[in-house]
Amino acid sequence: MARRPADAPIQEFALIRSLESRYARHTPGLVQGIGDDAAVIETSSKTWCHLTTDLLAEGVHFDLRSTPPESVGYRAAMANLSDIAAMGAVPRYLLISLAVPKTVKRSHIYELYRGLMKACSPYAVALIGGDTSVSKAGLFLSITLLGTTSGHRALFRHGAKVGDHIYVSGTLGDSLAGLKLLMSSTTASPLGQRKTGFSRSHRQFLVRRHSYPTARIAEGRWLNERRLASAAIDLSDGLSGDLRHLCEESRVGAEVELDRLPISPACQAYARAIGASPIRLALAGGEDYELLFTASPRDCGTIERGTRTRGYRMTRIGTIRPQRFGIQMTIDGRTQPMPVTSYEHFR
Amino acid sequence: MARRPADAPIQEFALIRSLESRYARHTPGLVQGIGDDAAVIETSSKTWCHLTTDLLAEGVHFDLRSTPPESVGYRAAMANLSDIAAMGAVPRYLLISLAVPKTVKRSHIYELYRGLMKACSPYAVALIGGDTSVSKAGLFLSITLLGTTSGHRALFRHGAKVGDHIYVSGTLGDSLAGLKLLMSSTTASPLGQRKTGFSRSHRQFLVRRHSYPTARIAEGRWLNERRLASAAIDLSDGLSGDLRHLCEESRVGAEVELDRLPISPACQAYARAIGASPIRLALAGGEDYELLFTASPRDCGTIERGTRTRGYRMTRIGTIRPQRFGIQMTIDGRTQPMPVTSYEHFR
Repeated sequence: MARRPADAPIQEFALIRSLESRYARHTPGLVQGIGDDAAVIETSSKTWCHLTTDLLAEGVHFDLRSTPPESVGYRAAMANLSDIAAMGAVPRYLLISLAVPKTVKRSHIYELYRGLMKACSPYAVALIGGDTSVSKAGLFLSITLLGTTSGHRALFRHGAKVGDHIYVSGTLGDSLAGLKLLMSSTTASPLGQRKTGFSRSHRQFLVRRHSYPTARIAEGRWLNERRLASAAIDLSDGLSGDLRHLCEESRVGAEVELDRLPISPACQAYARAIGASPIRLALAGGEDYELLFTASPRDCGTIERGTRTRGYRMTRIGTIRPQRFGIQMTIDGRTQPMPVTSYEHFR
Repeated sequence: MARRPADAPIQEFALIRSLESRYARHTPGLVQGIGDDAAVIETSSKTWCHLTTDLLAEGVHFDLRSTPPESVGYRAAMANLSDIAAMGAVPRYLLISLAVPKTVKRSHIYELYRGLMKACSPYAVALIGGDTSVSKAGLFLSITLLGTTSGHRALFRHGAKVGDHIYVSGTLGDSLAGLKLLMSSTTASPLGQRKTGFSRSHRQFLVRRHSYPTARIAEGRWLNERRLASAAIDLSDGLSGDLRHLCEESRVGAEVELDRLPISPACQAYARAIGASPIRLALAGGEDYELLFTASPRDCGTIERGTRTRGYRMTRIGTIRPQRFGIQMTIDGRTQPMPVTSYEHFR
């Protein structure tokens, strides 16, 4: 349910947000309404249900002319799975609605579903409903995913405390590099023209990270069940934007040490090949679907040991500061405000 | 989650349905997947959650040029509330997603939300999430509604037994008459030109029944909590189509006595004024959002007494027959197959 920058240009979105807060009401059983990765409701004395939904428009969020429909479906499901991961929940049930123009190819529908269900199948998520409509222009895809946690615990965006360490899972910037590679493959690419150390396997890795990202379901569950994280969000907008959301909800500031950002060898090789800064890719990149979370210093030993045992990759990248500190980044001993760079979707 | 006739022309829908059944899987906790008014999941030893979703497209399901946006929102929410009513559940939580074209008026968004929330406010339904996107063509609205029942009971489409009585709540055909009145108001209407006994208050009643229908939440809850109905569905497609769904899921046939159909004085006056059969309006009408349900003859006394006490209107219109009987209607002592007439949405 991330509100992504693709939405930004229209002033109507400000209106919708004000209407949402106007109509949001607290009712018994509602644990978390609008404002986190998923809404949380209490359905029993033991269980919380987590609900997230996305509405994706052809030509805005995806382009069936340039992207295989299977990847469109896979990524759409993964965006929702990642919201559920960021709550520390187990994904359970899926509803898929499609508005289909008459011009769509049958094979595209087939592949879109295959991608959606391929993303969900490792988690045994069941397709339980949806709706189908005609569209007069373009394919629209609406996904609702329900996850559960037991024991009345979840990872929220609020809860980070001054002094907590900031972590990310996996590596950053791969998806943006993969997207750039896919987009440049139809035009002249400098990468193949000279020796850059950027190999075919680097390319495959980055394109795969973009087209078939991985939601960190197991990592989120572990952090939640062991109560190791004080706050969490998934990286859909990019580090800069999502850290800002977490800090706003927790009413804190943050200091990120840029030389700690985890960047894959492939992304580093790509950055070198195009003469760009890998850190810039990591900061501006979106749709990595890694977890960004905070943890009390007393839990850092457990996190680092658990990470090694379980084969998770989690990297400490900074520290939570007081709100008045703002959101700063440090490199080569210099500290400066983190720019509000955010990922731009395909338009 | 009704699959409405507006969907029918495209063969892709057959593909989507086959994909749904291919990917539908039974998992522990799933009580009812695709195929009823809502999906049902067990979230605790006491609670079932009911999930329904609709995706509505401008120019297919609604027309903002001819329908007030408040009514579009109201009716969209009511369609989902009616699905929850047909499960005998209490509506609880709402997610609203909008894909908004740049040409949309701010006042339209405002009124759309007002209509959505006006429909939900009598039931204290809380808006808990959603998504917002740009649309390159037309407004798209996706609604997901979650309801709950306790004690592991609900009204399903399956469960009707041979010999059960068939009931409907309220009156039939009003919404279709109201739609026809709204559509003819822009062209020359015969109704104002001669004395027909069709009054202004009849017109207001029918237009209101179309623009601001009522989901039978209280009636559905009562039938479910008292275990009075053996099967139920809401009338969104029209009596003929929805009775067919109920009979298919219950593997039974049905006999409907047409002279028992409850038709409002306003709908009767309208039918007289345009020289049409009120029974035809009642059969072909859709979006009445009344409940169609079946009950064992031993419960009929309780239903009829309870109805009087509570001020509900419930009319016995026929009897469940064996599947080989088919779906027949009786009038003036003659029995004939019920035609597959179904409501057509605005296109």
